[in-house]
Amino acid sequence: MRSTLIHAPGDVRIENVPDPRIAAPTDAIVRIVRTCVCGSDLWAYRGTEPVDQPHPIGHEFIGVVEESGPESSIKPGTFVISPFTDSDGTCQHCTNGIFTSCVQGGFWGGLNRAGEQLGGAQSEYIRVPFADGTLVALDDHPDDAMLPSLLTLSDVMGTGHHAALMANVRPGASVVVVGDGAVGLCGVLAAKRLGAERIIAMSRHESRQQLAREFGATDIVAERGREGVARVKELLGGSGADCALECVGTEASMAQALSSLRPGGHLGFVGVPAGGPELPVGQIFSKNLRVAGGVAPVRDYIRDLLPDVTAGIIDPGRVFDAVRPLDEVAGAYTDMDGRTAIKVLLEP
Amino acid sequence: MRSTLIHAPGDVRIENVPDPRIAAPTDAIVRIVRTCVCGSDLWAYRGTEPVDQPHPIGHEFIGVVEESGPESSIKPGTFVISPFTDSDGTCQHCTNGIFTSCVQGGFWGGLNRAGEQLGGAQSEYIRVPFADGTLVALDDHPDDAMLPSLLTLSDVMGTGHHAALMANVRPGASVVVVGDGAVGLCGVLAAKRLGAERIIAMSRHESRQQLAREFGATDIVAERGREGVARVKELLGGSGADCALECVGTEASMAQALSSLRPGGHLGFVGVPAGGPELPVGQIFSKNLRVAGGVAPVRDYIRDLLPDVTAGIIDPGRVFDAVRPLDEVAGAYTDMDGRTAIKVLLEP
Repeated sequence: MRSTLIHAPGDVRIENVPDPRIAAPTDAIVRIVRTCVCGSDLWAYRGTEPVDQPHPIGHEFIGVVEESGPESSIKPGTFVISPFTDSDGTCQHCTNGIFTSCVQGGFWGGLNRAGEQLGGAQSEYIRVPFADGTLVALDDHPDDAMLPSLLTLSDVMGTGHHAALMANVRPGASVVVVGDGAVGLCGVLAAKRLGAERIIAMSRHESRQQLAREFGATDIVAERGREGVARVKELLGGSGADCALECVGTEASMAQALSSLRPGGHLGFVGVPAGGPELPVGQIFSKNLRVAGGVAPVRDYIRDLLPDVTAGIIDPGRVFDAVRPLDEVAGAYTDMDGRTAIKVLLEP
Repeated sequence: MRSTLIHAPGDVRIENVPDPRIAAPTDAIVRIVRTCVCGSDLWAYRGTEPVDQPHPIGHEFIGVVEESGPESSIKPGTFVISPFTDSDGTCQHCTNGIFTSCVQGGFWGGLNRAGEQLGGAQSEYIRVPFADGTLVALDDHPDDAMLPSLLTLSDVMGTGHHAALMANVRPGASVVVVGDGAVGLCGVLAAKRLGAERIIAMSRHESRQQLAREFGATDIVAERGREGVARVKELLGGSGADCALECVGTEASMAQALSSLRPGGHLGFVGVPAGGPELPVGQIFSKNLRVAGGVAPVRDYIRDLLPDVTAGIIDPGRVFDAVRPLDEVAGAYTDMDGRTAIKVLLEP
């Protein structure tokens, strides 16, 4: 089959590799119908994260089960959405809903906690360990038009929703969203869905500002740093916001989000902190800020959000503003790296 | 009147100073009935916090209103409990319940946000600005036996309660409490009151272990660091705790609390972080930890906890294991500094 491997920073290739096969009775093999490139794939691509040896890449996919082991209840032909990690569904952490901490799980394209290499999602097929604990099965096959939004449930929409939940977004809340990538935009949509009254999207890119408004942003702030904080407080009548969603992961974005909060405000953070920075405990302590977030345990969120997606109430698939065949995966990385696309959909 | 001033690290003196007088129509003058020394008073005493010039000290008191301004509804003769800060009760932050961030407020013994020096509580009398927004009035004068527990509502019991609330303690929860000072012990009591099923108190001092057990601790862990974490996980069947209360404020205690949590667990922190350390964002992110805390906005908690105190359901005043007349305040600091007392009550 065709599968994407990263060999070194800037060097992503689509290659012929052996087809995956059932290796355990709880496995399934999924034929990937849609996949995509994530902002976090760019860390390895940009060299922020080391690439010690070539490895498969990509962690978001939807598809159809091609074959399943005797201990999986998901039958061949079933349409499935996969979270960006696998999970056994039975350990203490899965039982607590923190599937991303599953004692046997791991990220697609990486090593799982047992040290086994998992397949990458930018591929034609993938082996899914713990199929029942990982995949969410749909009752029917969706229309093609629905596929982009379903694919966002694999990561970015669930991650934006996690940010909004961790930031305690409630009806009537004022919310600041830092980050105008696919996750930040999904964070706007999630905040709107949870009933926020004011949603301030921080963005300097016209096309992203436009989509943020269509997703529910009531205000756009293009300024950053102290000026950005001052503008947020001005919009909210002098105090800070009830909630902030941090969807980038840099020191500047974290500072922006924390400083935009009123005393007692909640920060939900999902921007992966690449090597830091540490959180400023003095600021958090003195203002009684509440900080929560992390690797979004999206599996439960797929079930929570799916009805709104299939009913057309939310349309997060609009974050895909470019489509390429899987064979052009290298071009998709170039688009994402140059920010000429928000998010690129790949068709195997 | 007699009032305590700190002149330099290690140099606390009781002195004659002018009696406080009504300066604004919203003021009250309170005759202090009981006060005490707080662990946080020791920072200046130990030189952790600079003492640029002599200033009044002490921030916990209960007493009787001696005189009140024309715009205060609290009449002379009323018994009152004061939070450790004053607050106008009307600004946006007070309205949000974060009285400690009041735009006009400050800590007793320090400067308020308008730059005005507030009186210290280790005194015979104190001027209370914004009396209606600060003090909580009791319907009757309490018995002497009730005074120690009422005094804890001024700070340590409310602060322990804040830690437990911020740590999301719920019925059935497993809780680790780091810190066996008065706040940590009150945290144990607060966790028990909120319905925790397992409460692990980390303590190496026999008398404090004993009081922790009487306050509701089901287990005591004397080990620290990695051994302490391993012991907590062993007690809880391999995973970490649902909730951790950090009641010290050092790097080691914060690490202890965070590492004791299961993925998705909640940390409530009230130990004042004296100059750091910053919070480890990578650990918080990867384990989806939720971190909240800060300067406890105890004013609302006084009302919440008062019925349980007056009904004898909780008896937090037991944290006072020494009593001295106010004139012996210097000795009270020595007791606290040497950890020969958990907390020293002072009688003016």
